[in-house]
Amino acid sequence: MGREIGLCLVYRDMWQSSGKYMPRVDQLVKVAEPIIDMGCFRRVETNGGGFEQINLLYGENPNISNRAWTQPFNDAGIQTQMLERGLNALRMYPVADDVRKLMFKVKKLQGTDISRSFDGLNDARNLEKSIDYAKAGGMISQTCLCITYSKIHTVDYYIKKAEELINLGAEEICIKDMAGIGRPVSLGKIVAGIKEIKPDILVQYHGHSGPGFSVTSSLEAVRAGADIVDVAVEPLSWGTVHADLLTVHEVLKDAGYSLPGINMKAYMQVRTLTQEFIDDFLGYYINPKNRLMNSLLIAPGLPGGMMGSLMADLENNLKSLNKWMEKNNKPLLSQDDLLIKLFDEVQHVWPMMGYPPLVTPYSQYVKNAALVNVMQMEKGKARWSLLDDNTWDMMLGKSGRLPGEVSEDLKNLAAEQGREFFEGDPSELVPDCLDELRKEMDENGWDTGEDDEELLEYALHPQQYLDYKSGKAKADFETDLAQRRAEENTPPTSTIPGIDHTWDLGPKSIQVDVNGERFNVNISYDDHETSASQSQETSAAPPYANGHLKEILAPLEGKVFLTKDPSETAKKVGDTIQEGDVICYIEAMKVVNAVKADQSGTIAEVCIKDGEDIFDDDVLFKLN
Amino acid sequence: MGREIGLCLVYRDMWQSSGKYMPRVDQLVKVAEPIIDMGCFRRVETNGGGFEQINLLYGENPNISNRAWTQPFNDAGIQTQMLERGLNALRMYPVADDVRKLMFKVKKLQGTDISRSFDGLNDARNLEKSIDYAKAGGMISQTCLCITYSKIHTVDYYIKKAEELINLGAEEICIKDMAGIGRPVSLGKIVAGIKEIKPDILVQYHGHSGPGFSVTSSLEAVRAGADIVDVAVEPLSWGTVHADLLTVHEVLKDAGYSLPGINMKAYMQVRTLTQEFIDDFLGYYINPKNRLMNSLLIAPGLPGGMMGSLMADLENNLKSLNKWMEKNNKPLLSQDDLLIKLFDEVQHVWPMMGYPPLVTPYSQYVKNAALVNVMQMEKGKARWSLLDDNTWDMMLGKSGRLPGEVSEDLKNLAAEQGREFFEGDPSELVPDCLDELRKEMDENGWDTGEDDEELLEYALHPQQYLDYKSGKAKADFETDLAQRRAEENTPPTSTIPGIDHTWDLGPKSIQVDVNGERFNVNISYDDHETSASQSQETSAAPPYANGHLKEILAPLEGKVFLTKDPSETAKKVGDTIQEGDVICYIEAMKVVNAVKADQSGTIAEVCIKDGEDIFDDDVLFKLN
Repeated sequence: MGREIGLCLVYRDMWQSSGKYMPRVDQLVKVAEPIIDMGCFRRVETNGGGFEQINLLYGENPNISNRAWTQPFNDAGIQTQMLERGLNALRMYPVADDVRKLMFKVKKLQGTDISRSFDGLNDARNLEKSIDYAKAGGMISQTCLCITYSKIHTVDYYIKKAEELINLGAEEICIKDMAGIGRPVSLGKIVAGIKEIKPDILVQYHGHSGPGFSVTSSLEAVRAGADIVDVAVEPLSWGTVHADLLTVHEVLKDAGYSLPGINMKAYMQVRTLTQEFIDDFLGYYINPKNRLMNSLLIAPGLPGGMMGSLMADLENNLKSLNKWMEKNNKPLLSQDDLLIKLFDEVQHVWPMMGYPPLVTPYSQYVKNAALVNVMQMEKGKARWSLLDDNTWDMMLGKSGRLPGEVSEDLKNLAAEQGREFFEGDPSELVPDCLDELRKEMDENGWDTGEDDEELLEYALHPQQYLDYKSGKAKADFETDLAQRRAEENTPPTSTIPGIDHTWDLGPKSIQVDVNGERFNVNISYDDHETSASQSQETSAAPPYANGHLKEILAPLEGKVFLTKDPSETAKKVGDTIQEGDVICYIEAMKVVNAVKADQSGTIAEVCIKDGEDIFDDDVLFKLN
Repeated sequence: MGREIGLCLVYRDMWQSSGKYMPRVDQLVKVAEPIIDMGCFRRVETNGGGFEQINLLYGENPNISNRAWTQPFNDAGIQTQMLERGLNALRMYPVADDVRKLMFKVKKLQGTDISRSFDGLNDARNLEKSIDYAKAGGMISQTCLCITYSKIHTVDYYIKKAEELINLGAEEICIKDMAGIGRPVSLGKIVAGIKEIKPDILVQYHGHSGPGFSVTSSLEAVRAGADIVDVAVEPLSWGTVHADLLTVHEVLKDAGYSLPGINMKAYMQVRTLTQEFIDDFLGYYINPKNRLMNSLLIAPGLPGGMMGSLMADLENNLKSLNKWMEKNNKPLLSQDDLLIKLFDEVQHVWPMMGYPPLVTPYSQYVKNAALVNVMQMEKGKARWSLLDDNTWDMMLGKSGRLPGEVSEDLKNLAAEQGREFFEGDPSELVPDCLDELRKEMDENGWDTGEDDEELLEYALHPQQYLDYKSGKAKADFETDLAQRRAEENTPPTSTIPGIDHTWDLGPKSIQVDVNGERFNVNISYDDHETSASQSQETSAAPPYANGHLKEILAPLEGKVFLTKDPSETAKKVGDTIQEGDVICYIEAMKVVNAVKADQSGTIAEVCIKDGEDIFDDDVLFKLN
């Protein structure tokens, strides 16, 4: 028998790479037992990544969830692990040092043993505190090499990066192949190089299966010395998720490695329960396309884990774009057309943006920039005519050092807009905040929780925590779920044979009961959008035909907000605005875009409501 | 740069592993050019397998198709290959020697360069004539090792089998991993063993991707010396089909091998055209589930290529079984439940049946036996209570030597039924027939075609050829397609979130025009089955309540026929039948099952029409 290889079930990532939500705590606790009974896992990924935030989003307490879900594994002697984003901890933008430090302490006390830390730019500076704080909190510190594929992301580059992390005190190295585009033999060379630097360091391979390399990569990594391989289980394995346990297990056994046997009865129980959760509510947030392998992902190199949100974005953008195309008598695009254009644009802009590894949140930034570019260029506008502040910050160095160089074009654009490049330590840009938040919670009469875990959540996800506290999150979620369930029972008008179904939906009115409070919900769909009825009317009329009013149109599709935070004042009728003023915000593809007025005047009508979904070219304001 | 590796696009198998039909000749010719332009293929699989028969099935001439479709590749210097089934040539049951010989001659003259021959039992005797006739016809003779996974199908077993084939004169060896369950490292050892026997023999790896091994297997096969790897292209790659070109190409390049570059513009054209064909009509015959990977296939070892028909069978059987369950107040089964029961039963019966490799047609036999067993046992009947003659013939040795031993149970059952085991050469069981058929064609005034290709088709697929000649095939196909197109536009009543859609369909009447002739078609669906209305009525009544009539019920779901061939007389009202008499036939899962009366009496009513689809437990006959 050969060397013993460990398996890690990344149950958290399985869900997050499939759709929007995670199972509820009662469901997680139910599936923990058969996962343990399978008898083949050394580790289980329980939380981190979007787990905590997702709990808040549907109105549940992530602290209760995490403690209950890690407990059975702690009891069974199976190590639990979480994913965290370094500088961004468990969210998409930087977190203060004191919050980061508290997080590792809380998570260890909640039952999570290992912290898998990554920096999306592979800038080791950003992981130094993760390593120190994880160890201080009592966790095992695992750090990641985020695998991306470009002419500068070579085998030697990654081995050197691993060495930096080891020198900073990282106890384990994860090969985080989040797009599954690491080339198998090269990945083996990287693992071999790490083992050469430090033979006893634990190496864990984490791959997604999208483009079809992951099984081969698992074998190559193990041959080169990797100790643990991450796997998924049916019905969420393959596609944008990870390779299936059964396949990886067989390949490694056939290659002569020693692995614990699988209790197949327990496997089938896990499979059945997971399907039950999908049928319960999670399936309403899973794009069936995420189950497909897709070799076209090789060229753009985007992570499978973001394909869910990407396809949703694409669908919305396609509707929006085709509306414009129709209005302008241009040929309509299919979803495939737009996808291919997007992939091409990703390949074009990625080097210009300095080759940030295609991992959250930078994969979102690159994809977002590419998609906005495509949308703008399809409508005859210039590339880069819309670029959000977060993406700028990344390019300016505020998230860490980029692996490559930002293009001259973008440097010039930065100079034009008065934006400055930053060379310092990004973690110094965010001031500590726990004292202030603790005081605030105190004043509200809120408990900071066991081990300050409620304080941590408030600090990590302030808005979501407030929405969770107020019951709004749960109400919104229940409303959305009810809407999706209602949609399911409305007839389709057209289908593509054998592959796809496009739905045409009629308006509905439903009542939702949340914590005893009754909500009346009017549901509308696509072309019958009641909220968009104003703009529907005006869009048929020629520009300026509406009396002598000028219109400011939405530059992209998304959720519109009149203000970004409570300190701002919303624009209202009678306000005078100048061309270039920020007049509202559109949240699209996980990024908030400031919308600037393209003409000056006095507001005659505010055509939008805070938080509503709009298409691009919908009228935002009418000006005198 | 390392050794040069060739790629073969198995365009024929891509379609056949996806669904029922192949593109029409006009479509094939259209896609040939961009396939050539891709610039990366040494070979293309153009025909063989089900290709010829499928053309007849939808009313097209396979000879015209094959000549037109191979021509561009012949002109471009890309080798074309076909799959043939040894003893069974291009069909599912044995073919006379003179027909086999003619086939290789005709196919070479039609433009096919390489004959990939396999025997489903890996009995080299059955391939001796394929090798001789292929070479005599001017083709390159490639023979297959059909990869299956069991305790008797070891690395050494396969190397020995390859040696037998090489000794018989095989010019190339194909590792035919039709279920994709060959374990990668073991496959590498097999290839290495073959190359040790004969270092200059060409080895081609052909794997399906279903359980997720295929990319790894391709790499291991190449490392061990394989010369060519079979690949598919989007949108038909992965799932039950083959690994995608792009992925295999990248893995091999990264491993240091030399491969020609891919013209991506041409790739996208092939992809777009292939999608166009799907949208045109082929998608109506593709189960979307075939696009999914499925690690549960590892244990039963069934080929991905038959998953399409398996899922269709399963769906029909499930309806039928659940009808019975409902009637008997038992809990209904889901498609998943039935699939898992089927897989378990395959694992149980396979050793008993002597471990025939799970390849067409034996995979069908094993799956069929397992499915019938599951259906019977779910209803409280015994295992093996229904076993068709073809499966018996295989177990008795009439198809060649089984790799394993038939179980004592089945040997006893054979003895009970007076069935005798056969040790001779199976090819001697089928007398030559070309002279007779040529005479018959002559008498009908039919042309035997260029190079006798029409004679060949008539000899290979007599019934389908007659239906093609009469126009019935085309009419049936057009009717079926029209029905599917109509179904597509009827609303569903229930859906499973995120994954699946179950359709409830209303009755429809349509008109179809075939070659100028007008057909009025009444379509009915499932519960509204007009043809099943009789049995619907009676099934509600208690047995024998219908006057004093006894009923003979259908033992399984399928297409019912009163006679098997024109020499038989159909049972009719007034006929006296004895218990045990064959009274009709049910074609199910590609096998014709004789139905025996389970009671004696005089026929009072014939409740079936020739060729109609029935559920099990539908009334076949009523007896006095």
